[in-house]
Amino acid sequence: MATAKALVCYYSRSGNTKKMAQLIEKGIASGGVEVTTKDVKDVTPRMLLDFDAIVIGSPTYYGLMSAEIKMLLDKSIKYHGELDGKVGGAFASSYNVGGGNETTVIALLEALMIHGMILYGDPEGDHYGPVSIGAPDKRVEKMCIRYGRRIAELAKRLHD
Amino acid sequence: MATAKALVCYYSRSGNTKKMAQLIEKGIASGGVEVTTKDVKDVTPRMLLDFDAIVIGSPTYYGLMSAEIKMLLDKSIKYHGELDGKVGGAFASSYNVGGGNETTVIALLEALMIHGMILYGDPEGDHYGPVSIGAPDKRVEKMCIRYGRRIAELAKRLHD
Amino acid sequence: MATAKALVCYYSRSGNTKKMAQLIEKGIASGGVEVTTKDVKDVTPRMLLDFDAIVIGSPTYYGLMSAEIKMLLDKSIKYHGELDGKVGGAFASSYNVGGGNETTVIALLEALMIHGMILYGDPEGDHYGPVSIGAPDKRVEKMCIRYGRRIAELAKRLHD
Amino acid sequence: MATAKALVCYYSRSGNTKKMAQLIEKGIASGGVEVTTKDVKDVTPRMLLDFDAIVIGSPTYYGLMSAEIKMLLDKSIKYHGELDGKVGGAFASSYNVGGGNETTVIALLEALMIHGMILYGDPEGDHYGPVSIGAPDKRVEKMCIRYGRRIAELAKRLHD
Repeated sequence: MATAKALVCYYSRSGNTKKMAQLIEKGIASGGVEVTTKDVKDVTPRMLLDFDAIVIGSPTYYGLMSAEIKMLLDKSIKYHGELDGKVGGAFASSYNVGGGNETTVIALLEALMIHGMILYGDPEGDHYGPVSIGAPDKRVEKMCIRYGRRIAELAKRLHD
Repeated sequence: MATAKALVCYYSRSGNTKKMAQLIEKGIASGGVEVTTKDVKDVTPRMLLDFDAIVIGSPTYYGLMSAEIKMLLDKSIKYHGELDGKVGGAFASSYNVGGGNETTVIALLEALMIHGMILYGDPEGDHYGPVSIGAPDKRVEKMCIRYGRRIAELAKRLHD
Repeated sequence: MATAKALVCYYSRSGNTKKMAQLIEKGIASGGVEVTTKDVKDVTPRMLLDFDAIVIGSPTYYGLMSAEIKMLLDKSIKYHGELDGKVGGAFASSYNVGGGNETTVIALLEALMIHGMILYGDPEGDHYGPVSIGAPDKRVEKMCIRYGRRIAELAKRLHD
Repeated sequence: MATAKALVCYYSRSGNTKKMAQLIEKGIASGGVEVTTKDVKDVTPRMLLDFDAIVIGSPTYYGLMSAEIKMLLDKSIKYHGELDGKVGGAFASSYNVGGGNETTVIALLEALMIHGMILYGDPEGDHYGPVSIGAPDKRVEKMCIRYGRRIAELAKRLHD
């Protein structure tokens, strides 16, 4: 029996974005989808083909994802068109409110749309994708798990 | 037998955005989904509940949708949460390349994400949603029909 | 002796955005620029010509400014080109972190760029423009006053 | 006598973005500002301090600047705060209309705002910054030269 598979890919220096990745992983797993979480340095563009859902997170560097995440996206052009129809998601941490976390999430989602991926907003939680100001607190924990569940729900509807 | 239903909602003064709406309608219909196209003045927030896919188009006024489209979105808060899981899409016309058509499409998509809707990017065509520079030409016609078909395909996978 | 003049224009229902407007007004005044704060319902497009700096604020409605603010922008097309070179700024309130306040500020700034206005980012505070999560607290008060001062400083360099 | 100095920094593989950089350089020079154009590989973050205006261009890779440009921005954090008050600008090339050129320009401008830079929109030309679909044609040539002149004009008002 086929099961949807999800990848959570992150870049993290302080550990805040990594923590968010682990919480989203927990949410996806609780939604019944097989999930793998990886540091971007361990992700090759080729690996992206193996998953039905791909969720990418980054700290906010100048209102955008880190160059390391951008490099993965740039190299993924080798498989352009082959991610069409997969579920995509994004999350970000930042130091400040108003510090660029939303623009980071939107920029990641734009990249995933250009790959032909399917996105899912949220009317209740962090609308575009989870954001943390500094270290993830209880609010962020709830948001990340909720987001993971919604990604899992959509991946199952589309790919099981 | 249940069939997915789609709404194409537009604002248009010159007729360019209306023409795009009709082309997207054609694409959605050819994808096997029942589709209704309406001028925003004839759309109430309540009507949005009746459709599985909602595609909204606007000319580019200061890099964003017209105030008339924004007014529909603002009033739709009455049904906040009830559009969760519907398919959303956006398109825009503008006078110039670099004239704000992409920012208009992205802004519409952001609003639909906040309603909890599901978006679909495109690796080949206009990535975020169809855009026309001036009157729709052959390229735009192709893009709009392609976009309608993809929206229909996704709506059927999720809602049939 | 000529003095730069600034307008702070806001839309507010809960009073949060109005409070931010008043704090920004305070910052602008302390920066030595003559400043007027007005509810958008009392602002005509024609009035925009009378100021050297225009700062616009809105609550976050579906990731964007309210339709009332958008209507002012749409009508301002009557004076398109005549705002070229004025200083522009934006601010927003929202209910949640990740709730669309940054996308609201960016969307406002995009509109002001299309008018040919001059924008000023901030390396320390809320980078794109002040944002408040709910009612303005001490942090927001500081950010708004700081932003007002920076707008005043730029307006004086360009227009005194 | 002090003269404003401008840097045009670009990344280019096909040569399209480089061509745009040279046209913008021409516009800046004709506006009476000393201008240097450099491939991003020859630009260090430290160099950014030497200029009063910094204009950055990139091809559109997944709706954003190339990772090489992003890497320069990430490394520029070493001088965070020291670019406050400089003039910033952006431009982009892309393969398609609707292909992400506007989102690339906006993303670059967001990064420059986070450095505290001063941006200048345009009511007539490509509003956010010049964009080229494929190789620069006559329209793009005109836009780039116009943009360079406006950047020069602003840099002189602020920094001469």
